[in-house]
Amino acid sequence: MALTVRLPVIGVVRTTYQELETTPIQASLNRAGHGTIEIAEPYRDGLEGLADFGYAWLLSWLDRPRDPGGDAPMRQVPFLLRRQRRTMGIFATRGPRRVNPIGLSLIQVLEVTGQAVMFAGVDLLDGTPVIDLKPYVTRFDRPPGNPPCGWFDQLTIGDGTTPEQLARPESAT
Amino acid sequence: MALTVRLPVIGVVRTTYQELETTPIQASLNRAGHGTIEIAEPYRDGLEGLADFGYAWLLSWLDRPRDPGGDAPMRQVPFLLRRQRRTMGIFATRGPRRVNPIGLSLIQVLEVTGQAVMFAGVDLLDGTPVIDLKPYVTRFDRPPGNPPCGWFDQLTIGDGTTPEQLARPESAT
Repeated sequence: MALTVRLPVIGVVRTTYQELETTPIQASLNRAGHGTIEIAEPYRDGLEGLADFGYAWLLSWLDRPRDPGGDAPMRQVPFLLRRQRRTMGIFATRGPRRVNPIGLSLIQVLEVTGQAVMFAGVDLLDGTPVIDLKPYVTRFDRPPGNPPCGWFDQLTIGDGTTPEQLARPESAT
Repeated sequence: MALTVRLPVIGVVRTTYQELETTPIQASLNRAGHGTIEIAEPYRDGLEGLADFGYAWLLSWLDRPRDPGGDAPMRQVPFLLRRQRRTMGIFATRGPRRVNPIGLSLIQVLEVTGQAVMFAGVDLLDGTPVIDLKPYVTRFDRPPGNPPCGWFDQLTIGDGTTPEQLARPESAT
């Protein structure tokens, strides 16, 4: 079953990244990187109040997959497991090649103007369409304690990590 | 500008909730509530590894808005500000009536079988379509410190809060 829907684009992300392989894999790993969301005119009034939040969730439509056209496989080698060539179920990964290519980026809100959001924490290609912004609310978004994080708990993940650094794509299965 | 896309439905949420007004407004406020995601057959292999995570992000398509047909207003009275009748920009709220009605629920993973995910933390109507599952990864999803959370910081939000408890809809503007 599938829904056919119209997704209004509320804005476009402006970043310095043009290629997936050299784009940091998560916003939280690239807090030094700054980007801008240019908000389309009909949605600008929706920004009221956002400046009072430290962080926000940026939901994006990942419109430039590495393998256009093909369905996302249910088991994949995540970027972070390329060296081990280990597969994981897609719903246990944060990779961009998904059934529905919706990105979830935790951005730090730096400044909100009438028509743009300046942020820190960049893991998106320049020009990526934005489909939602939601404020980060600690009461809602922080689980208690230190929950187990599956295979990620076995890794040390450096700041600024990109797919290219984790091994050449052709060496991944 | 808008994208017209096909969103495969990876599963359906089963909960005890049939009406928005009596459904808790956030998963984190209803940890005692349990639900199930029935995963559609083509996507079941994608669950591999998910059981090792304590929490996950459930992305849903909020298919039963209170005001069907109308565009979401850019300024709204959030459920939690009904008593004050205070409006906020839509991107500074977590309400379900959005430009793109995509829900973001932080669920606690209780059990993963071959075809279903049992979870705690329910804020969705029975039958809501699921469009993605992503594991919660502390390294990616927890901002440092205690960031400001805008107007939420002025509220005390009780467990199990529903819209109905916060005032009748007709008293909101």
